Amino acid sequence: MIQHETKIRVRYGETDQMGYLYYGNYAQYYEVGRAELIRSVGITYKAIEEDYGIMMPVTSMIIRYIRPALYDELLTIKSSLRHLPDQFITFHYEIFNEKGRLVNGATVRLCFMDIATKRRIPTPEYLKEELSQYFNT
Amino acid sequence: MIQHETKIRVRYGETDQMGYLYYGNYAQYYEVGRAELIRSVGITYKAIEEDYGIMMPVTSMIIRYIRPALYDELLTIKSSLRHLPDQFITFHYEIFNEKGRLVNGATVRLCFMDIATKRRIPTPEYLKEELSQYFNT
Amino acid sequence: MIQHETKIRVRYGETDQMGYLYYGNYAQYYEVGRAELIRSVGITYKAIEEDYGIMMPVTSMIIRYIRPALYDELLTIKSSLRHLPDQFITFHYEIFNEKGRLVNGATVRLCFMDIATKRRIPTPEYLKEELSQYFNT
Amino acid sequence: MIQHETKIRVRYGETDQMGYLYYGNYAQYYEVGRAELIRSVGITYKAIEEDYGIMMPVTSMIIRYIRPALYDELLTIKSSLRHLPDQFITFHYEIFNEKGRLVNGATVRLCFMDIATKRRIPTPEYLKEELSQYFNT
Repeated sequence: MIQHETKIRVRYGETDQMGYLYYGNYAQYYEVGRAELIRSVGITYKAIEEDYGIMMPVTSMIIRYIRPALYDELLTIKSSLRHLPDQFITFHYEIFNEKGRLVNGATVRLCFMDIATKRRIPTPEYLKEELSQYFNT
Repeated sequence: MIQHETKIRVRYGETDQMGYLYYGNYAQYYEVGRAELIRSVGITYKAIEEDYGIMMPVTSMIIRYIRPALYDELLTIKSSLRHLPDQFITFHYEIFNEKGRLVNGATVRLCFMDIATKRRIPTPEYLKEELSQYFNT
Repeated sequence: MIQHETKIRVRYGETDQMGYLYYGNYAQYYEVGRAELIRSVGITYKAIEEDYGIMMPVTSMIIRYIRPALYDELLTIKSSLRHLPDQFITFHYEIFNEKGRLVNGATVRLCFMDIATKRRIPTPEYLKEELSQYFNT
Repeated sequence: MIQHETKIRVRYGETDQMGYLYYGNYAQYYEVGRAELIRSVGITYKAIEEDYGIMMPVTSMIIRYIRPALYDELLTIKSSLRHLPDQFITFHYEIFNEKGRLVNGATVRLCFMDIATKRRIPTPEYLKEELSQYFNT
């Protein structure tokens, strides 16, 4: 299992007129969460695209909103990878506010696609190898 | 059951560097879909907030992404309300591209909150009445 | 001179906690305005990119905000092209609310770039021809 | 004069299909820049709103785009306040990429508005005092 925490401060432009972080903007926070988790193991999403020619479209997202996040709050995004990826890679998230209370939880699943052929492929070997050291197999 | 269709053209600023409509931006499309469904039965979300003092935070969202939407595509957002709301109001969505192919499907659940007291309340009576004529009860 | 009007309804997710359309989101409205102006003369921005291999990065933007736009307002985006483009193409905008009052005015200048060479080029001939019929020369 | 630097990493969802940070998204970066500049002198924008009942709508923005910012680049937002505010408060910005090259420059002017009365007011005294120590007067 790989876990990673990253902090994001809510921008004014991300709030809505309820004064809440708009429900659709969490998707960017999850994106940052997984990009930083991947970076923490020595790979970057940018390199996956540019050097390996692979892109990772999202195939599903589930969010349970518990309480609102507000402007200027410094949120903690806890991202985790519980299983070695195969056809898919699945990230689990919990976002906490400054008081340590749960804002929401989410699961985002992505697949791998060869940019040149536009075809889906399984998890690239180099990524699997890099990740496997974090899992008991 | 209430169904409603609305069209949204994908903006350049909504795409990402994959050339896809960014996966987080669909939340705005669903928001427009339910606002227009509600408008079609003679109420506006704006009036619910301003005249009735009620806001509707999202409590959960599930999206299954099937194929990408691309810049300048005129998407059809099919929104439906399958049940009379009670503690929650649940919208189902399907988005289709210009070729009539399914882009994604989603379920978004919202609750009702009294703006003055910041407390959750069940579906307001006037909204239930307005909607009930569309359901066999 | 070419003028074009298009309507955009303000989305909830585009407002901020002041209850205003967030000041940064107008850039998307201007983008839609010029895309629709270009479409009205028989070209699409999508085709400029895909068929002609040209992209159009923005080189400057000036906005004067007069009054706020609010959730659910149906805004009128008035876009105009006052001069035939040469090295640059410059769009002028005025946005009006439902009461016909000016929300803001803006000027956005773009250049042309060959996608293959990543070099700036002057206005493509086919675009100049298509546009020139609207200008006294 | 007050100067402040803050870093922002470009999110995937902020890019467009050119592979550039979308031109409209810089407005959020400037917003973060001035919020952090204000925080550096001991005030928060959140407190200005909540404790003093004042909001600060943007009245004009001028941006000159020099070169694109790309996904995952860690940008440096240099924000400065060159003059003590009076009727307006004007921020100047320069954004640099990781190579230290200028991405763009901007000027954003805001006014002060009493939230209760919805009327424009001059710079609040407490803010002027807090800022004046940074200026030779």
